[in-house]
Amino acid sequence: MGKIKALRCITCGKEYSPTDVEYTCPDCGPRRGTLEVIYDYEQVPEKFNKETLARDMERTMWRYLPVYEFPKLATQHGLKALYIKDDGQNPTASYKDRASSVVVIKAQEKRKKVVTAASTGNAASSLAGFSAATDLETMIFVPRTAPEAKVTQLLIYGAKVFLVNGSYDVAYDLAAEAAMEFGWYNRSAAVNPYLVEGKKTGALELAEQLSWNPPDFVFVGVGDGSVVSGICKGFAELQKLGMIERLPQVIGVQAQGSAPIAAAFRKYDGKNVSIDDIEAATVADSICVGKPRDIVKAVKYVHANGGNFITVSDEQIMAAIATMARETGVFPEPAGAAPFAGLLKLASEGKITGKRAAIIVTGNGLKDIVTARRVAGRAIEIEPTLAAVKEHL
Amino acid sequence: MGKIKALRCITCGKEYSPTDVEYTCPDCGPRRGTLEVIYDYEQVPEKFNKETLARDMERTMWRYLPVYEFPKLATQHGLKALYIKDDGQNPTASYKDRASSVVVIKAQEKRKKVVTAASTGNAASSLAGFSAATDLETMIFVPRTAPEAKVTQLLIYGAKVFLVNGSYDVAYDLAAEAAMEFGWYNRSAAVNPYLVEGKKTGALELAEQLSWNPPDFVFVGVGDGSVVSGICKGFAELQKLGMIERLPQVIGVQAQGSAPIAAAFRKYDGKNVSIDDIEAATVADSICVGKPRDIVKAVKYVHANGGNFITVSDEQIMAAIATMARETGVFPEPAGAAPFAGLLKLASEGKITGKRAAIIVTGNGLKDIVTARRVAGRAIEIEPTLAAVKEHL
Repeated sequence: MGKIKALRCITCGKEYSPTDVEYTCPDCGPRRGTLEVIYDYEQVPEKFNKETLARDMERTMWRYLPVYEFPKLATQHGLKALYIKDDGQNPTASYKDRASSVVVIKAQEKRKKVVTAASTGNAASSLAGFSAATDLETMIFVPRTAPEAKVTQLLIYGAKVFLVNGSYDVAYDLAAEAAMEFGWYNRSAAVNPYLVEGKKTGALELAEQLSWNPPDFVFVGVGDGSVVSGICKGFAELQKLGMIERLPQVIGVQAQGSAPIAAAFRKYDGKNVSIDDIEAATVADSICVGKPRDIVKAVKYVHANGGNFITVSDEQIMAAIATMARETGVFPEPAGAAPFAGLLKLASEGKITGKRAAIIVTGNGLKDIVTARRVAGRAIEIEPTLAAVKEHL
Repeated sequence: MGKIKALRCITCGKEYSPTDVEYTCPDCGPRRGTLEVIYDYEQVPEKFNKETLARDMERTMWRYLPVYEFPKLATQHGLKALYIKDDGQNPTASYKDRASSVVVIKAQEKRKKVVTAASTGNAASSLAGFSAATDLETMIFVPRTAPEAKVTQLLIYGAKVFLVNGSYDVAYDLAAEAAMEFGWYNRSAAVNPYLVEGKKTGALELAEQLSWNPPDFVFVGVGDGSVVSGICKGFAELQKLGMIERLPQVIGVQAQGSAPIAAAFRKYDGKNVSIDDIEAATVADSICVGKPRDIVKAVKYVHANGGNFITVSDEQIMAAIATMARETGVFPEPAGAAPFAGLLKLASEGKITGKRAAIIVTGNGLKDIVTARRVAGRAIEIEPTLAAVKEHL
């Protein structure tokens, strides 16, 4: 979208030059002082408009991940249209790739030699995968309890993986400390203002793929709040530029056992975001976040969008994995199934009847075969005869 | 590519109408009598040419999976250019999706209610995934020893999975028998002539993405021989249509313990393909095939292409998984790493110096975390202090 005008604090509104501040607002601190990237929107349309996009045949990982339409499933749930955008088909199989690629580019611009993150999940493997093709070294901090399969994905990309004797929070703090001490570039959570710029591309793609006529509702899973913020910012900027006429309502879906942002949204008075951390627990590990780092942006952006937050139970999430895979062929990880669970909930309450709705699937089901197994059903054991087959038809 | 003119036997050359024959040549049988789809190439250019493709903005799963370029890695191995086409980013994460989508469309045209396949691997999960979004029912036959993770992927897509008390060959025969008995549409192996039509799209995409200037060499893993046949047919048709000037040399890469097609190619006299089945064994499960079903097409097509078959050891395949993930960020399953192992072999022998080469990655590494773990290296266990981090830098 062209040249960045400023980095603006989401809480106090103070603007900084990108050369002065790297992560968060010095006045408001890392939790409330997350920054947003502001462009000169009057200059954007010169180079970025519907015509230049239509002429641009470049097909990178951004242009485009598929959007699928499911007319029968839409009818079945009283919808006018149902779209699924499958970010499980990204290079490292999650939505996080949209942010990691920006981080890797920024790190190179800033002449950093090392990037770092604390996470056992999609963010870490995505960062490791994207920096693999560069000269950047990747340092990942994970708690000692991290599942071996996820550690394997990090290691195969060549990341240096520190198995920290402590909890996730301990690993997070150590990564931040190490980034400061050794001058590494920090991808962790939402302190880095450029992450949301990557994450907004999901909204840009969806709007263009639907011929600038976005759906009425967009459902997306919410953990730390960065993805839902990015989606809201993308649509808001397209409207500001006159490229879409109205905003889709963005519905952030949280797991019941991990819903501090939904709680803060309900209390939000249009001014102050209250932050009440919890002990989170949900089967959807990628959105299991008790201390969401991007809560302020998420609440403010969804409020400005006119959207909402809803919650779904782990049982609804598990059921949604199987239903989505069976009805659409898109196999989501638990966090990727949460928005579909949210859609089914609103549809059953008659709240989206006759509307067009899209679901963002943020992670591939192959990342969590263990959970899928719990709802997949069972194979039929038979002797190798036609008679045995017939018995089960 | 328009209307099909005939289905032609790869061995005797007899032509059949698609309405008369479903799978293989009645004269030559299922093994030697695989059919190829023939178009009226004089009529194709009216609707399918460089200009119509450039105007066509449709972005489906075919247009396009990414092709990545790695200039540094190319230089390191004496190449002029190195491209990787990552089919691990397909909807069910393997190259088989290109064929499954064609099969699902054909089954619906033929008003079949059920599709079937015998396989524990990518073909079965791909078929199950693609028919999930349709009204087709999917019946999969797997040997009792099938790994639980792969069975889970089949079940989550809603396929009926028969766990057959017997080997893979027993399951294969039972699937063929059941398809005949119950009128199910058979996706198994290469008896179905339309599979290769899906599989050739990898070549079409690669050529267009490189601006109709294809590389000198294209490396692809070979199991039953269908994928390599499809790649050869795609390039041959583009040349026939005048859309590319010269054919890239297609290099089929087999695992040393599973190389009956490479052996048949060495013996090939330009007339008769000798078929000598073996007991195959390799870490690359997706290309572990002792009785390749598409051996005749594979040998004839690669011969006509001017290409070759080479073999690599399991050690080379395992090393290639880690090297590819670390150097490119593309994480392949073992069979997807085999072509890279083949490229490294030819590069070290100086046989492709100064050339442009492409690798087709046919499956995602997330499908086989267990093998990746063997070459991924180890995480570093530390206490949560900066001093402990420093010790390992």
